[in-house]
Formats: sequence, structure tokens, C-alpha cells
Amino acid sequence: MAIPLTSLSTNRELSTLLDRYTEIRHFSDQIRGPLTPEDCVIQSMPDVSPTRWHLAHTTWFFETFVLAEYITNYRLFDDNYKYLFNSYYNSIGEQFPRPQRGLLSRPGLHDIESYRQHVDERLTELLPQFVESGDSNALSTVELGLQHEQQHQELMLTDIKHVLSCNPLYPAYHKVECSASRDLSPLTWVDYDEDLCWLGHDGQGFSYDNELPRHRQYLNAYALASRPVNCGEYLEFIQDGGYRRAELWLSLGWQHVVGHGWTAPLYWFQQDACDRYFTLAGRRELNPCEPVCHVSYFEADAFARWSGSRLPTELEWEAASRDLPRVGNFADKLLADSAAVHPSPDAVDDIRPARMFGDVWEWTSSSYGPYPGYEAPQGAVGEYNGKFMCNQYVLRGGSCATSQTHIRPTYRNFFPPEARWQFSGIRLAN
Amino acid sequence: MAIPLTSLSTNRELSTLLDRYTEIRHFSDQIRGPLTPEDCVIQSMPDVSPTRWHLAHTTWFFETFVLAEYITNYRLFDDNYKYLFNSYYNSIGEQFPRPQRGLLSRPGLHDIESYRQHVDERLTELLPQFVESGDSNALSTVELGLQHEQQHQELMLTDIKHVLSCNPLYPAYHKVECSASRDLSPLTWVDYDEDLCWLGHDGQGFSYDNELPRHRQYLNAYALASRPVNCGEYLEFIQDGGYRRAELWLSLGWQHVVGHGWTAPLYWFQQDACDRYFTLAGRRELNPCEPVCHVSYFEADAFARWSGSRLPTELEWEAASRDLPRVGNFADKLLADSAAVHPSPDAVDDIRPARMFGDVWEWTSSSYGPYPGYEAPQGAVGEYNGKFMCNQYVLRGGSCATSQTHIRPTYRNFFPPEARWQFSGIRLAN
Amino acid sequence: MAIPLTSLSTNRELSTLLDRYTEIRHFSDQIRGPLTPEDCVIQSMPDVSPTRWHLAHTTWFFETFVLAEYITNYRLFDDNYKYLFNSYYNSIGEQFPRPQRGLLSRPGLHDIESYRQHVDERLTELLPQFVESGDSNALSTVELGLQHEQQHQELMLTDIKHVLSCNPLYPAYHKVECSASRDLSPLTWVDYDEDLCWLGHDGQGFSYDNELPRHRQYLNAYALASRPVNCGEYLEFIQDGGYRRAELWLSLGWQHVVGHGWTAPLYWFQQDACDRYFTLAGRRELNPCEPVCHVSYFEADAFARWSGSRLPTELEWEAASRDLPRVGNFADKLLADSAAVHPSPDAVDDIRPARMFGDVWEWTSSSYGPYPGYEAPQGAVGEYNGKFMCNQYVLRGGSCATSQTHIRPTYRNFFPPEARWQFSGIRLAN
Amino acid sequence: MAIPLTSLSTNRELSTLLDRYTEIRHFSDQIRGPLTPEDCVIQSMPDVSPTRWHLAHTTWFFETFVLAEYITNYRLFDDNYKYLFNSYYNSIGEQFPRPQRGLLSRPGLHDIESYRQHVDERLTELLPQFVESGDSNALSTVELGLQHEQQHQELMLTDIKHVLSCNPLYPAYHKVECSASRDLSPLTWVDYDEDLCWLGHDGQGFSYDNELPRHRQYLNAYALASRPVNCGEYLEFIQDGGYRRAELWLSLGWQHVVGHGWTAPLYWFQQDACDRYFTLAGRRELNPCEPVCHVSYFEADAFARWSGSRLPTELEWEAASRDLPRVGNFADKLLADSAAVHPSPDAVDDIRPARMFGDVWEWTSSSYGPYPGYEAPQGAVGEYNGKFMCNQYVLRGGSCATSQTHIRPTYRNFFPPEARWQFSGIRLAN
Repeated sequence: MAIPLTSLSTNRELSTLLDRYTEIRHFSDQIRGPLTPEDCVIQSMPDVSPTRWHLAHTTWFFETFVLAEYITNYRLFDDNYKYLFNSYYNSIGEQFPRPQRGLLSRPGLHDIESYRQHVDERLTELLPQFVESGDSNALSTVELGLQHEQQHQELMLTDIKHVLSCNPLYPAYHKVECSASRDLSPLTWVDYDEDLCWLGHDGQGFSYDNELPRHRQYLNAYALASRPVNCGEYLEFIQDGGYRRAELWLSLGWQHVVGHGWTAPLYWFQQDACDRYFTLAGRRELNPCEPVCHVSYFEADAFARWSGSRLPTELEWEAASRDLPRVGNFADKLLADSAAVHPSPDAVDDIRPARMFGDVWEWTSSSYGPYPGYEAPQGAVGEYNGKFMCNQYVLRGGSCATSQTHIRPTYRNFFPPEARWQFSGIRLAN
Repeated sequence: MAIPLTSLSTNRELSTLLDRYTEIRHFSDQIRGPLTPEDCVIQSMPDVSPTRWHLAHTTWFFETFVLAEYITNYRLFDDNYKYLFNSYYNSIGEQFPRPQRGLLSRPGLHDIESYRQHVDERLTELLPQFVESGDSNALSTVELGLQHEQQHQELMLTDIKHVLSCNPLYPAYHKVECSASRDLSPLTWVDYDEDLCWLGHDGQGFSYDNELPRHRQYLNAYALASRPVNCGEYLEFIQDGGYRRAELWLSLGWQHVVGHGWTAPLYWFQQDACDRYFTLAGRRELNPCEPVCHVSYFEADAFARWSGSRLPTELEWEAASRDLPRVGNFADKLLADSAAVHPSPDAVDDIRPARMFGDVWEWTSSSYGPYPGYEAPQGAVGEYNGKFMCNQYVLRGGSCATSQTHIRPTYRNFFPPEARWQFSGIRLAN
Repeated sequence: MAIPLTSLSTNRELSTLLDRYTEIRHFSDQIRGPLTPEDCVIQSMPDVSPTRWHLAHTTWFFETFVLAEYITNYRLFDDNYKYLFNSYYNSIGEQFPRPQRGLLSRPGLHDIESYRQHVDERLTELLPQFVESGDSNALSTVELGLQHEQQHQELMLTDIKHVLSCNPLYPAYHKVECSASRDLSPLTWVDYDEDLCWLGHDGQGFSYDNELPRHRQYLNAYALASRPVNCGEYLEFIQDGGYRRAELWLSLGWQHVVGHGWTAPLYWFQQDACDRYFTLAGRRELNPCEPVCHVSYFEADAFARWSGSRLPTELEWEAASRDLPRVGNFADKLLADSAAVHPSPDAVDDIRPARMFGDVWEWTSSSYGPYPGYEAPQGAVGEYNGKFMCNQYVLRGGSCATSQTHIRPTYRNFFPPEARWQFSGIRLAN
Repeated sequence: MAIPLTSLSTNRELSTLLDRYTEIRHFSDQIRGPLTPEDCVIQSMPDVSPTRWHLAHTTWFFETFVLAEYITNYRLFDDNYKYLFNSYYNSIGEQFPRPQRGLLSRPGLHDIESYRQHVDERLTELLPQFVESGDSNALSTVELGLQHEQQHQELMLTDIKHVLSCNPLYPAYHKVECSASRDLSPLTWVDYDEDLCWLGHDGQGFSYDNELPRHRQYLNAYALASRPVNCGEYLEFIQDGGYRRAELWLSLGWQHVVGHGWTAPLYWFQQDACDRYFTLAGRRELNPCEPVCHVSYFEADAFARWSGSRLPTELEWEAASRDLPRVGNFADKLLADSAAVHPSPDAVDDIRPARMFGDVWEWTSSSYGPYPGYEAPQGAVGEYNGKFMCNQYVLRGGSCATSQTHIRPTYRNFFPPEARWQFSGIRLAN
């Protein structure tokens, strides 16, 4: 799953690692900050997990794969947690059923904070030993745990947004202002020549197993849109009957439109003759200049068909992003600045194509599958990615709920085509 | 719905009423006492409501039917509560969907405590006016609100038992001991002659509308069991293949047995080759001398058929209980004594038939319907009972989760035949 | 289940019995007459059985309970039929799952006709022996088989109506005219005094077990409507918002209205701005003078509440009908006359109350349960009735799809409160 | 959708076309031959259509896209058929709901035979005009209609197999013998070098739109198995706990195994301690030398993982098959020879890899998506393929239920990963 860290001078490495560990673990608590104990219990649909569960599960990951592996005769903090907080690792044992996570009244938030503290203490004791002995297996498992926690930090934000949206009081996660800027730059195209190129991760630094191996692919010439589709453009699609015209949709997508009565992205609603949406900062009027988000693959695909273009493949996306600076609108910066975790309407900088990283995950037309020569790692971590390679589509680039330190051009996120509760948007291709 | 109180001397009446109001409202807080904020959020199945919801809904009842009716220009504590905490009164307006009560993170427990306090203050200001002016409509609505709160107090106990039982940690509601007594009295029969009798409430004191009007019924001679069926006897039924023999069951009941894999009452399980159950005091070994509870109508009916007898009709039950003392194992006494809210295994006293009141609700073979000449009250309170008169069966006598001040011989409780999460047991007839 | 026939002179009895046997068995073929082999395969919902299945199952009943019982070493016509055509007799063995009856391509119609012929031949050989030996058990089982076949004849008609209605071509079962008469008699009331009366079957001639034992009941004074509610009256209920007003409905009924989008009785639709319905004679305009039919208990109950009256209890109905002539609009007469199997709009005769028998089954407010002292017969026939005594409501009087020779005042039909595909209508009481 | 036919001398072209038309249309009748009218009504699951529906729909295709387009003022054979027999062409209009096709009693088999005859007569009148005028649009639509009918011929066989399998009598479709040969050739590997190759259809002769455009792909070196996996090998997988080991399965696949209780391919069962399956020739013992079939993508993938190899991509498969002779075990030949429509256990010839065509469709690891530069045709035929490009996997090579004249190396069949009722099997890759 994880790639061994390259050698650094031991002291600097240790100090860096401890800092990263502390910072990332602390960021989970920071995300939890604005929430009440009651908020942290609720599971609003099977895909959503309670905040408390995320806090415990990420801790369970370190306890299971590091403490229990590397401390002789380690005693579990609580034997029940092995079962309660295992997500989907069949190799580790049975799991408490996912759709019932919202039924767990206990352990309470306080107990889970103790659990986190306990594991953090033991782990920060262990790290110097790993660095000194240069135990690359151990270190890469710690790294994996940190990357894993960052993934769950994004889920904590997307999940609590869904939880709060189910409450007719529409409580805000954080009471901050959203930017009212209006970027009026037109959508243009950036062209790329045909190429027989190398894609996938090059092995420098961390990657997930699903980004490997690096391999060759032939790409025809193509063009990418200069920026993501914005709410104003999406509104035109709606007003042009986008959700009523079967011919624009994949067959399965049309079944969802009809079966679930979709008429707009998730969280959009009408109030007082205004188009509004629910954001983590509460209800507000749509800003047409923001990247549209909370659309499914089906909606992204239908929008692209309506606009006379298409979605990019994941390889086109990766080839185009390889050499771009990894800057954008990310969760770590937003929370540090007390800004809303929300796509930005600000004018784009002069990077072309713009906003490939941050703001919204971009649906690609690529079904999530193994790269040629892919092999899942041995053991439980082999269940991290490979077994989900079916009926999901790849998204690229991270969103406003992702941390900047977590993303890279080869990063492959994936969700089923009907999923809408992530900050998922649209980049067009031609 | 409610029957006007008879006249008392004003002062005594007021003091009594204030005492009752304070005591009953306080008892809800007492039931809430052992629970964490997290516990109070969870809805473990559509029939169950979160504790917090019960606390708010009973308060909403007083606010809606008393404060908003009798205070000129009354301003609601929070406009949203009108929608959030209306249970099923279509006349009052739309209701937040019942199966989604567990999705409400806010208002939190603290907000609801403020709500309760606010309503209590206004109401205790109003009560003297009602008593002085002898406003029997107002007084009987207050009385209805108190009876209503007592019903929900029982539900708070049965619902939280279900919530806690879904947690594999099996947390106890209260850490108390259950009695280990062993009542070994054999089950005998008490005989009654045929009779053309008057049944239903006589109008003295409070009753619900469904206990009215008093009317004549012809009863054949019959016999009632001297006490409820106990766990030991029920275990014999199980060991004799009770859950595997279709011929013992109603057709719908058999569908439930097969479809849900029933093999024992709710909350029973096997552990270390022992028969155990989950109680509000945690997991414990079955005491064979306790009245069996958490059985559905289907199970009560199948047990009766297996034993060669039958369930009583609700009228047989009422006729037999009319003149018995209303004593037994009730929630108010149990919580005051720091005893487990659980059926008692103690030796029965010399009342015959014994334990008609308290311990377990007793399923009757009577479908829940209107008495001859029944008319639902006008207005929203008319929705209290009448509209549920379909596909439910009548239970009589109250349980260990009922308050002693809430029960009477004519009291008609009702649940669908598959319901098992109430403290429902079996009285045989012949 | 069945009551022994009383003794007749042997010859006359035999000749009568053979005639009845032939006539009733032949009537099934007559009902099948207008149908194609394709029609006879289809099961349009789990409650409906394919025509072919009814033809086979009624034959299986005679084979299983008569031939296999009374012929030594009887060899089954086809061993598979024991499983395929057992409806719900757990004592006989496993049953082919009811909702899958429409998946049986074989045995074909031709095979089932051979099966019927085979069983008829053996049975008509046996009947003289039974009569001669005066074997009352055998004779009453034959009688039960005939009554059973008559019940299924009604189901053949109601089921094929449902099957054909699912076809957008709306094929007619029989191409005959419906009467265009218009009975304009107003609905009046017939009064009855209070009474302590005997109800249930008196043991003279055949009855089902559920009509027994005869027992005493006390009835308050009541009134019955002079005739069933007609389509014109029901249309007023609809036009007065009947299907949009929650306060008129039982809570479960309202759930059906909302959940299934009910806006009118089954088979009613709008076409060219006309109110129409689908009948066994095809689509036609509503005749407002016909008794309304294909309403559920929920609709009957809501209509009664809207009209300011109520439904009768089954005992009120029985007491009122006891001494009325058993005449009306019945299936045997209608098919013999090549008239549509449909409620009649003809002017009523001078019987008061009119049309208690035939036309439409009349919903009563009585939940289907055992009479005091009821005992199900021993053996498989004990499964005929008793095990269905839960969550169903009693209907009385037979319909236009019933045979006149099948009905009597004590006859108790029963269906779940949501069932609408029977010819079920409304008689008001007060 | 369709590619224009290349020019032939007119007379020869016409004679060939008429022959093909007659032959292919007649083959549908031949497939229908062994079935009773009752067989032809049944829809055993939503994916399955009744035989009669297939016969009508393929005729509707010619009527809608040829007769109604090319005959001035053409009057439809029956206006209702436009709705009843439209499968999924939203551009043509609404469709009778797919899951309800089994509810259509009428039109009967006889009516549909008249419909087929009517359309055939008109079409054979039109064909000479099309050939003479060289109307390539018309001719390619006719060709599309024929290819379409061949696809439905395969479905008629797979669907009726499913229908008959639901009948506990297990009726045979045709009473013929299955070959008892035993091919004992071991599975070996055929190697291919890396290549930057052209894939997709080259435009010579007919293809579907989804085989286009021809485009370049880079392939790493790979190996294909010399023959499909056989039943004996699959049995080893089962005996090694294949269906009980979560680690062998995709996550969604494991959900199917657990949720549906899969323990073997569809149609396999145990009887008298023997492994058997249901075939179109009835029940028989497993022949271990036959290619395994009726496995889902999930099972193919799990088997491959268990065996230490993988499934091929569709491009690997296509590259390897390009130059192989298109011979094999096909439906047209089997029915002509009165042989069972079933995979063959005969020894393979010396083609390497063997049996790429016929016997069983081979699951590839490729999600079904558009080729680079793919564009769906304009109009209703644009709905033929493109809108299904989501959550399906590509199968290649045809099966024993396919006609030999229908298959080619570039042919892309596709089904959801859980589908098992097709003759789908496993080719391994490495």
C-alpha cells in the first residue's frame, strides 16, 4: 500500500515526522471543534459515518497496524474497539455493521478523546525508535496512517455537512462569511498533443498502491477546460431542461433522476424565489461564479453532453496536471483562516488550466480499475484500495475539504457514479 | 378525550394539581438522569424516539394545547418546534417525519431543558387562574397533558432499552441489582360466571376517550390464570420446538418467525451455554420465576395455543380486575427505590388473580376498536386515540415501566401484533 | 371445519350430490371459458393466483383430502402436484412459494384439464360408496371441497380482472353489455332494537368452522342503510376532497392513501374528462347508480366518517340479514344469462334493507377473530380459517362474483384492510 | 450505429440480403418452436423478457425504423404496439415498464405471429427498392435490424433457460443429449509481446457504433490461457473455500456472495450427492471438461485471483483474437444439428488460444466505456449502445447461444458485474 520513505538525516527526519504526526492528529480535533456531542453521534445515511466514529477509527488504525504490531505484548485500550472501529478489513476480523454506526451511544466523545490521547502517547514514544533503527516498514505504516487520517478529515467535513443538512433548522457548521467575489473569466480551452506517455506515481515520496505501477499509455490529442464549470453555467443547464431530457443522460443516470426526483445538485433548494444552497456556513444564495459542486458522475456526464463536450479521462487529467503548482483552495488553509470550507468564487490566477487542485474533485470518465501490472499489497492493508475497483469512477485534484499536504497529480479518488455528498465538480474536455 | 375533573375545594385542588404537575414533570428528568447527551440522540428503529425528542414533545403538548390556547398573543418558544415536535396531529400541521427523529442533532439537550423550564414556568403561572375560574376545559387539557407525559415516560424507558441493546457493549441504563427471588407458586385458575355486565369507564376521574362509553356486554363463563406466564414456562415452550412448529402460530405470526428468525423473546440470547437477557440493569442470567416479557402478540397467542388455553378478551380481563387493588411493580416505585425497572420474581401476594397490575402488560385477544357509541372528541385531541383503531391488539394492566398513578382497570393500551419492545407478557384464559 | 350433512334418503341424496358435484366443477370450466392459455398463466400481484393454478389447486384439494384418504394405495396423479398446488397447508407439507405461482410455465392448461378429469372420474366413483355407507366424515369433506371450489371460483373472477387490468390494451373478460339502468332510490335507514341475541351458525346444513359456535351477544339499538352506497354518492366524497383530508382516515389508511397515491377506488380512471372504470366487460363510463365496489376497508371507513355514520359490526349485519331472502345479483346467474359480472344498477326490490346479498361484499367494522368457544378442527383442515384471524376485517353478504348457492347470513369473509381487488363495497350503519 | 454496406453487384446483393433476412427471421421461429404458449408469457426476473415479447420487439424494430420511415403514410399494424414493444428508445416515446412485460396476456402468440408475417411481407417488398436505389441508410438500418434480431435470439435462449429453471419440474427446452466427451488438455499459456496497436473495428462490413473508432492503444506484454476455465477447475475453487473467503473477492462481489447466498455458478445444484446443473436439455451431472458458464464478473474475478492470475483486458483479448478463425460451438449450428445449446466438452482443435469464439462469453476486466473519439449516432439508434456505458463489464467472443454469423473479434458485449444468466465464462490472463 505504502511506499517506503526515502532516507533523510535521522534527526531532521524525526523532528519532521513528529511535527507532521502532531499537526495532522491535531487537525482532526480542530475539525471536531465546532460540534456538540449530539452532532457527533449521527449517521444520516449508510455512506456517512458519525464524527465520533471517524475520530475513533483513525486511532484504531494506528493502534492496530502500529502499536499492536510493534509493541511486544501490547494490550488493547479496549478489546471491544477492535470490532467497533474496524471499517472494512476482513483480515483483521468481523466489523460492526457500517449502516449501524449511528446506533452507538457509547463510547462517548469523552472516551474517544481518551483513546486518541492514549494512542498518541504510545505512538510518539515509538517514533524515535523507528527512525533510529530505520525501520522502513514501520515508518511507511505510520505514514499510511497519517494519509488515512487526512482522508477521514475530508470525510468528517463532508459527512457532517450531510448530517446538518438533514435538520430543518439548517444549523451552520461554522459561522463564517463566504466570499462574495465574482470571477467572470470565460471558459476557454487548453490544448495537448497526442503522446505515448508514462503515467502513475514515480515512487518518489508517498503514494497509495492504486497509483502504481508507473506505466505507458497512448493519449490522443485533447483539450481541457481552463477552469471548472461554475454554478451559473450549471444553472443554464437546469433552465434548459437538463433534468427533464432523457437523451442527455446515461441510462442508469436517468433512472436516478427519475427515481430520486433530482432537479439540481445536492444541497440546492429554492427559497423566496431565490436559488440557494446549504453550505458549511449555513444557507446562502448561490454565487454563480463558484465552481459547481455536489454533483454526481451522472450529472457531470449529462452536463458535458449538453455542452457538446465530454469529461476527461483520468490519464488526460494526470498528464495535464503533472507540472502544475499544487496550489488552490484547501481545507487546512481555510480552517486556519477562519474561512468557509467551500469552493471559491475568486478570480483565478494565471495557471492554465486553472484550479486543477482544490475547490472541487473533478469527475473523470475513467472507471476505477487497476493499472497494468497492479498488485495489491500482502496482508490487511491490501484491502485498502484494490477491492473497491468496481462500479466506481475516478476523481482527481482534491477539493476545498482536502488538505493541501494530501494531494498530488497521481492521486486517484473514487466514488460510485451516484455519489453527491462529496465536493465533486466538473472539468470539461474535448 | 379527557373527562372534566370533579369539583374540589379550590385551594386543595390547586395545591394537589401543582404538586402533581411538578412531580410528573420532574419524573421525566429523573428518567433522563442516567443518560449521556449522546444516548439521548439515537433512534434505533422507526418505532423508537430519541429521549430528547420525548422530553421536547411532551413539553410541546403543553405549549400547543395549553399555553397557545389560553395565553393571549402567546409567542412560541421557538417557531421550529411546532413542526419538529408534533408527533402525529395533522390538525396542528405537518410533522417532521417520524423515522428521521434520530437525524436531529439540534436542538441539543441543553436547549430542550431550557424549553421545558420555560413552559413549566408559564404553566405554573396559569394553573391558579384555571382553578380559580373553574375552567374545566383548561383543567382537563392540563390533566391530559400529564397523562400524556406519563405515557411518554414509559416509552422513554422502553425506547432507551432498545437503543442500548443495539450497542455491542450492552451498556446498562442503571447499575442496580435485579432481585434474585424465586416465586415457585404453580399457575392455577380463577373462575368467573357468565354475566351481562357493564364495561368501560364510569366517568369518575380521568379516562381516555377510548375507554368510553360505558356499555353492556355479554360474557360467557371463563377462567383466568392466577399469575402471568413466567420465563421458566416460556422456556419449556421454546424447548418443545415452539418457534419451529407452524401449527402453533397465526399465519402472519409464522411469517414473522420465519422472516425475522425469531427463536426467543426480544433481548434473550445465549452466552456461555446460558440463557440470558439484556435488561435495563445490563446483561444477566434468566430468572425462570419472572414474568416473561418482550413477547409479541404472535408469541403470546402461540404460547397459549401450545399450552392448551387461550388469551383473555379485553372485557374478560376488565371484568376480572375491576375490584382488585391497584398495586404492583411499577416504574415510579422502582426508580424511587433504586431498583431495576424489570418484572419481579418475588412471591405473589394473596390477591387472586395476582399481578394483574404492573410487571408486564398483558396481551388480550381483542383487536383494538371503538366501543359501541364511541365518538372521537372534536379538534386535534380527537387524533389521540381513534385513528389508531386498526390492526392493533389491546394490552391491559400496565408494566414495570408504567407509573402506578397512571393505570386503571379500564385502561386500554394497544400495539401492533408484532411489537416486542414494550414490557409485554402473557396472561392465560380458559 | 365442516359440519356433517344431515341424513337424507340415500338415493335422493346421492343424485343431489352428484348433480352438485358436476355442476360446481363444471362452473369452474365455464369461468375459464373466455380465457386464452396465455391469460391463465399470469400472476399480477402476490395476492392473485393464475387461473390455471386455481383449476389445479381445487382439484388437488379433492385429491389430497378425499382420494388419498379414502382409496387404499391411491397413486397420486403427479407427485409434483402435491408441492406445486398446496396453497398453505403446512400439515400437508411444503408449498411452492405463493408469489412465484406466475413463474410456472408447466403443467400447461391441457395437463391440468387432464388432472381435473382424472380426479372427477375417481371421485364420482367414490361418491356412491360414501352415500351408501353413510360416511359422514367423507361426505362432509366432499362438501368442504365443493364449498372450497366455489370460493376459488370467485377468486378466479376477481383475479383475472386484476390481471387483465394490468394490460394497457384493457381486454374484456367477456364481451357483454352492462345494464344502463338507473336506480334513483334515496338511501334511508332501517331501525333495530337492542337485543341479547344468538349469533353464529345453527348447525343446520353446511357452514365453515369460523361461523361457530352459536353464541350470545348483546346488541345496542342500531340502524342499517336501506341499500349499499352507490358510485354517485362515492363521487361526492371524492369531490369533497375525501382523498386529501387526513382527518377522515384511520392512521394506517392515510398512510396507504399517501404511499400509494390513492385518489379513487381500484379500476377507476379518468379518460376524455369522463369518470370510467375497468370492468370484466371492458372499460365503460361510471354508472352512478351502481353500488360502489373495489374499495378497501380504509376507504369504506373514511366514507362512513365523512357521511357522519359508521360501518356496521358483523353481528349487527348478521342479525339484520337472518330472515331476509337470499336473493340478489350473483355470479352463477349472471354467467348463465350472459350478463356482465358486475354490480347491478337496477331498481331495488322491496326487501328492506335491500341488496344485503350479492352485488358487493360489505365491509364491517369487525376485526376477524374467533367466536367465544371457537376451536379449529383437528388436522390439515384446521388450517382453513383459524390461522388467518389477525389483521383482517370481516365482510358479509357475497358479491356479484359469488355463487348464490354459496352464501348465507352467517358467512364470514375476510380480507386485510388495504385489499381492494375483491368486489367489496359499503353498507352504512348508525 | 451501423456502418453502410459496401457495394456489391445489385442482383447478388439483393438475393443475399433476402436470403439473410429470411433465414434470420426464421431462426427466431425455430428457437420458439419447442415452447408452449404458456412458456412464452413468463418473465422470471426483471432482466428476462418473455419469448413472445422478443418476437414482437424485434418486429417492432423493423416496423419503426424501416417501414414507418420509408413507406409514405404507413399505417401501424397496431397503434398499441408502439408503446408495448418499445424497449428503451426514449426518442420514440414512452415504454411499457420493463419489469411488467410478464403481465401482458395479450396480444397472444398467434397475434404476434400475424404481426411478424405482416412486417416480413412489407419488408421483403421494400428490400428490392433499397438495393436498386442503393439507399445505404435504409440498407444499413435493415442490417442493424438483423443484427438486433440475432442479439435477441441469444436472449430468447438465455431467458427461457432462466424461466424454465424457476419451475421445480425443471422442464427441458429441448430433449436432446449433451455430449459426454472429456477434453483433458491442460491449461497452458500463449504469450504476446508489448505493442502499440490499432484496435476497434476497421469499417469493413457491419459493426456496432461501440466498436468505433479504430484507435491506438499501448499494450504491455501479456499471456492468455490456452482455453477457457472448465467446470472441473472451477469445482476446485469451490472446494478450496472460494465462496467463503472474503479476501478473494471484490468488495461488491463479496456483498453479492453474502447477500444472495451464492455458493456455485447459477443453475448448479446438489442432488443425490452429485454436482449437477440445469441445462436447456434438462438436469444433468456436471461434466468437468466443459467450459464453466453462468458465472458473474465477480466470480470470474475471484477465480482469477484464487488461481494467481487475472482476467484479460478487452484490448488484450481483441489483439489476440484478430487473426483467429471465427469457428466454434454456436447456436445456429447446434440447433441445426439437434444438439444441446450448451458449452462443449469436446477436445479442442489446434487453434491457439482455443475456443476464443463460441461456447462461453469471456469476461474481461474492462469497464464498458466509449473508445477515444466515440460519438453516438444521431436519433433513436443513438440510444442503442452509448447510454449503457456505466457500471457494466465487457465480454468477448460469443457463446453457444450466439449465431456464428453474428460475432467478430471487435464485438463488445456488456453486462453488469452481477449478471449470471448469460452463458458467461472465464478466460485467464497473465
